[in-house]
Amino acid sequence: MIPSRLQALRREMERRGISLYVIPTADFHESEYVGEHFKTRKYITGFTGSAGTAVVTMTEAGLWTDGRYFVQAEKQLRGSTVTLYKMGEEGVPTVDSFIRDRLARGGCIGFDGRVVNALWGDRLAKIAAEKEGTLYTSEDLVDRFWSDRPQLPHTQAFLLEEKYSGMSVKEKLRAVREAMAAQGAGTHILTSLYDIAWLLNLRGRDISHVPVILSYLVLTGEKCIWFVQDAALTGQVREYLQANGIQTAEYDAIYDYVPTIPEGETVLLARGKTNYRIVSSLKPGVKVVDAANPSEKMKAVKNEVEVANTILAHVKDGVAFTKFMYWLKTNIGKIPMTEISASDYLENCRKAQEHFLELSFDTISAYGPNAAMMHYSATPESNAELKPQGFLLVDSGGHYLEGSTDITRTMALGPISPEMREHFTAVCRSNLNLANAKFLAGCVGPNLDILARGPLWDLGIDYKCGTGHGVGYILNVHEGPNNFAWQLNGPRGVAALEPGMITTDEPGVYREGLYGIRTENELVCRKAEKNEYGQFLCFENITYAPIDLDAIDPDQMTFREKKMLNDYHKLVYRTLSPYMTEEENTWLAQYTREI
Amino acid sequence: MIPSRLQALRREMERRGISLYVIPTADFHESEYVGEHFKTRKYITGFTGSAGTAVVTMTEAGLWTDGRYFVQAEKQLRGSTVTLYKMGEEGVPTVDSFIRDRLARGGCIGFDGRVVNALWGDRLAKIAAEKEGTLYTSEDLVDRFWSDRPQLPHTQAFLLEEKYSGMSVKEKLRAVREAMAAQGAGTHILTSLYDIAWLLNLRGRDISHVPVILSYLVLTGEKCIWFVQDAALTGQVREYLQANGIQTAEYDAIYDYVPTIPEGETVLLARGKTNYRIVSSLKPGVKVVDAANPSEKMKAVKNEVEVANTILAHVKDGVAFTKFMYWLKTNIGKIPMTEISASDYLENCRKAQEHFLELSFDTISAYGPNAAMMHYSATPESNAELKPQGFLLVDSGGHYLEGSTDITRTMALGPISPEMREHFTAVCRSNLNLANAKFLAGCVGPNLDILARGPLWDLGIDYKCGTGHGVGYILNVHEGPNNFAWQLNGPRGVAALEPGMITTDEPGVYREGLYGIRTENELVCRKAEKNEYGQFLCFENITYAPIDLDAIDPDQMTFREKKMLNDYHKLVYRTLSPYMTEEENTWLAQYTREI
Repeated sequence: MIPSRLQALRREMERRGISLYVIPTADFHESEYVGEHFKTRKYITGFTGSAGTAVVTMTEAGLWTDGRYFVQAEKQLRGSTVTLYKMGEEGVPTVDSFIRDRLARGGCIGFDGRVVNALWGDRLAKIAAEKEGTLYTSEDLVDRFWSDRPQLPHTQAFLLEEKYSGMSVKEKLRAVREAMAAQGAGTHILTSLYDIAWLLNLRGRDISHVPVILSYLVLTGEKCIWFVQDAALTGQVREYLQANGIQTAEYDAIYDYVPTIPEGETVLLARGKTNYRIVSSLKPGVKVVDAANPSEKMKAVKNEVEVANTILAHVKDGVAFTKFMYWLKTNIGKIPMTEISASDYLENCRKAQEHFLELSFDTISAYGPNAAMMHYSATPESNAELKPQGFLLVDSGGHYLEGSTDITRTMALGPISPEMREHFTAVCRSNLNLANAKFLAGCVGPNLDILARGPLWDLGIDYKCGTGHGVGYILNVHEGPNNFAWQLNGPRGVAALEPGMITTDEPGVYREGLYGIRTENELVCRKAEKNEYGQFLCFENITYAPIDLDAIDPDQMTFREKKMLNDYHKLVYRTLSPYMTEEENTWLAQYTREI
Repeated sequence: MIPSRLQALRREMERRGISLYVIPTADFHESEYVGEHFKTRKYITGFTGSAGTAVVTMTEAGLWTDGRYFVQAEKQLRGSTVTLYKMGEEGVPTVDSFIRDRLARGGCIGFDGRVVNALWGDRLAKIAAEKEGTLYTSEDLVDRFWSDRPQLPHTQAFLLEEKYSGMSVKEKLRAVREAMAAQGAGTHILTSLYDIAWLLNLRGRDISHVPVILSYLVLTGEKCIWFVQDAALTGQVREYLQANGIQTAEYDAIYDYVPTIPEGETVLLARGKTNYRIVSSLKPGVKVVDAANPSEKMKAVKNEVEVANTILAHVKDGVAFTKFMYWLKTNIGKIPMTEISASDYLENCRKAQEHFLELSFDTISAYGPNAAMMHYSATPESNAELKPQGFLLVDSGGHYLEGSTDITRTMALGPISPEMREHFTAVCRSNLNLANAKFLAGCVGPNLDILARGPLWDLGIDYKCGTGHGVGYILNVHEGPNNFAWQLNGPRGVAALEPGMITTDEPGVYREGLYGIRTENELVCRKAEKNEYGQFLCFENITYAPIDLDAIDPDQMTFREKKMLNDYHKLVYRTLSPYMTEEENTWLAQYTREI
C-alpha cells in the first residue's frame, strides 16, 4: 500500500519537475495536534506517531522521528520502503542536511507551503539557492491522489462569555493593537488557532482535545478580518462578530488577501508560527516585523477571572480524580481492571462534573513497565491488566467552561519495592520543592528547574524532558512561553515567570522495562512580598488530589518537605471533602493524613 | 585643581576641534584593575573610585559611576564642576545617550582609542555618524598636560615553571593555534594581559594584585610575537622565549604591526576585549572573526596540576586564615584591634606561608555596619575599632606560586542578635547547598544559583550581586567565563560548568547601617558518575577555614544541612590540624565540632 502511494507521489513530482518532496506533520497553523485531514505524513509512510517528517526523492523515502517513537516506527515502516532516521542519534543526518545532501544541482524542493513555517521554508529556499535550484510550494501533491481523504474539520464556533474569559474581545483587540503600534506595525497576521480563539473569545471543536476553530485573522488599526469556514458561523456568532466590528471572509481567502497588502506597509507576524505560503506571498516592499504574537504572552498571563475559574475547574477535576483514585485503591484485586477500563472510569468521573467539555488530551493510563514510556497510550493490544501490585501512572485532564486541567498521579496498587518507594518519595520531594519556591521577579524557568530536578540528580537520575509547561485556558493544554526546563535553548524557549501564568510541575522517574513515576500539579504564579530587594513571586498549587501516601517513605523527607506535603494534603482535604461521600471522605482523610 | 585640569583638557580639545571627550577607567588591555599611570579619569575628575567614566564637553563635565560609589563620588566631586550621573537610577541617561544628546551636528567625539574597546568604539562611531560628525582617537589628550603622571609600570617577568603551570607554552600555543584553525583564522590578536600571561607561562608585577606584564601578542600559524617593554625581559626570560620560538617586539610596536596584516587575512579577536585603535587600524580587506579568545576557556578549565597546586595554596591560605581567626576570636576585647590592624595581622599570617607572592586583592576588613557595603575598604578615617560584639567580615586572598585564593568569613566577635544569627545561619545553608549540588553536564550558573540564593529568597532577602565568580590561577582573582548568577544577561555572561573550573560560592546578607554577612568558599568542578542519563558533575570544596559556629543556630538547619556543615568542618580539621599549634588545634577542634 505504502509503496503504491509513494509511486503515485513520485508521478506527481515528476510531472512538475520536483526532485524532492517534504511532508511534515502539520496543519496550516503550526498546531501541536492535527486533525485526520492533515495526516498526510501518516498516509504516505504508514507511521501513525504524532511527530515525524517524511522526505521523498525519486529513489528514496525517509522518515524522521524522535526517541519516543523509534520502536513503533521501526515496526510500522517494515516493508514500506521508507527508511527510518532516528533523530538525535549519533551519525543520523537532520532533515535539512539530508535534503542538502540529496538535492542535485538545479534540483527542485517541493512542499505544501501551508504546512511549513516561514523560518523552515526560508532555510529550504536557501538550500535550493545553494544548489542553483528552485522551490515548488503551491500544491499539496498528496491531495491529488488521496481519494478517501477526510474532510477539513468544520465545527460550529461557540462564544466564551465574559464571565469565563474575564476580558471582552474589544479590550483584547485594543491591547493587541497597542502592541502593534508599539512595534510600528499597521497590520498583524495571526494564524495560531490558540491565539485567535483567545483573542475572539470563541471556541470550537476543529481539533480533538483543543477547542479551536480553523481560521486566520488579519488585524489593522481599523479592521479585523476573520478568515473562517462558513460552518463555524452560527447566527449567534455572526451577531457577536458584527457587534464587535469583526468582518468575516472565506477561510482560504487569506491567500488572496495577503498579496494585496500594499508596499510600504509594516506587518507584524511570528515567522516561526506562520506558514511559508502566507509570508512568501507578501509583496517585496512590505516590511515584516518578526516577533512573538502579542497575544502569546497575553493569553499566558491569566487574568483574575481566568485564574478564579481555573481554580473552580481544578476543584471539579480534583473531585473527579479523587473519586477515581478511591475507586481504584479500594477495588484493585477485587474486580477486573485494565489500563483502558481504569481510564474509562476516570473519564466518566470527569463527565459527571458540571460544564465538562472534553478531555484536554488522550489519557495516559500506564501500568508497570508501560509507564516507563513517557507518552504511552494504551491500545487494545497493549492494554495491561491491573494487578494488586506495582504502580499505575495516570496522566489526564479535562476542559471545562471554567478552564483546563492537567494532572498526573502515580498510585501503588499493592506492594512496591524499596527502590520504587525511594523514587516515588524523591519525585514527591521534587514536586513540592518547586511548588514552594519563592523567587525574584525576572526569574525564568531554568533558574527554578533544579528545585524539582535536584532531588533526582542527587540520586543520579534524570527525566529527559522539561519539568513543566504552560497550560492554556480552554485551549491547547501545552502552551508557551512559560515552562520549566534547565536548558536555555530548549524547544519552548525561555520566558520570565509572571503573576497569572500557570505552569505544570511534573518531575518523574522512568525505569525502562520496570516502572514509571510522575507526580504533576499545576502552579499559578502569584505575587509575594515587595521590598527593598524587589518583587518576590511564589506559586499557588491549584491541583487537588492526594499524593499516594502508600508509596511515601517519610524517613527520606526533611522536616520541611514533610510539612510541605502535610500542608498540601490539608488543602486537598479541605477543598474536596464537601463534594465527596462519607465513605470517600473516610478514605480521603486517611490518604491526606499528616505524616 | 579639577577646574583648571578641565580647562587644560578643553584647550587641547579646542585645538583639535573635538567637541566631546570620553575618559573611561581602563588600560590598553581592558583589565579590571588599572595601575596609577592609567588613572586619567581620577586625575581629571578627582573621583578615586575603581569604576567610572568621565565625559567632558566645552561647557559640561559628567562622571558616571555605580551604586557602590554614589556617596563617595558626591563628596569628591564637590566644587569640581563635574556633575555626578548615578548609573542605573531612574531618569539618569547612560553615557552613550548623554553623548548622543550633547553631540551637535557635525561634532567630533574624542577618546584615546587604546582605552576604549572596539565594541564601544563602534557604538561611538555610529553616534558620530548619525550626527554627520567625526571621531578623534589617536591621542591621549590628558597626557599633554599631566606633568607629574606616573610612568607606565615596567616590572620584570618571571617564569611559571611547568610544575606550577601543568602545561608547557608549546602545548598551549598548539592548542590556541588549533582553535584558530577551527575558526578559519590565520592570525590571532590577543591583548588580555591575563590570557597572555597564561599562554606564555609568564607572570610579572605590572598590576597590583594581578601578577601580569603589560603586553600584546600576535599569533599566526608560524609566528608568535610578544609586544612587551624591554624591562620585562630578563636574561632567563629571553632564553626561554627563544627556546620556544617566541619573538619579541617593542610594546608600542603593535600599533605599527596591525596595519601591516595583509588584506584577505582572517584575524581572530574578541572585539569586546580588544581596544578600538587596534581593531580600527586593520586594513578594510582583513576579515575579523569576533569570538572569545580561545585561551579564555582554556585557562578557566584548570588542568590537573593546576587543581592540585591550587589545593596546596588553599591549605596554606587556610592555615593562615585560621591562625588569624584563632587570634581574633581569642584576643577580642583583650587587646586593641581595628579593621586595619586585623587585616594587617592576617596579611602577616599569609606572608609567613611558603611561596606567598602577594595579596590577590585589597583585603576587605569590615566591622559592624561597614560590612553592609559590599566593597568597603577601610581607610585611616573609616577604620573602625573592633569590640567584643557583632560581626567582622573579612574578604581576602593571596597569590602563591601554587595558585590564588579568595575567601570570606564573617566572625562573631561577641553577642549577636537573633536576627543576625538567623541570617548567618541562612547564609551558611546557602553556601552549603550550592557546594553540595550534583547536576548534569551542560548546566550553566543560572541553573544552580537558586541553590544558594533560595534560602535567602525564602526569607525575602536578596544580595544584589552574583553568587560567585571564576578564579584565575596566579592571575586576576575575578575570571570568566564561569560564574554563578541568576540573570541570563548578567555582566559575566553564561557558560556551561566544566570539570576543572574553579568558582567562588559567596552568598551574603547586607543590612544597611546594621551589618553584613558573607561566607565564601571556592569550589572546583569535578566529574561525578556517568550513566544512561548523562555525565553528572559536582563540586569539591577547596577552601579550608571554620564557619563560625558561635553564629550558627542548628535548629534552623535541616538534618542534611547539618550533615553538610559537619562534613565540611571535619575536612577543615583534618586538612589544617597538621600545621597548627596544640593550642590552636584545641580551639580548632571546638570550632569544627559536630553540631
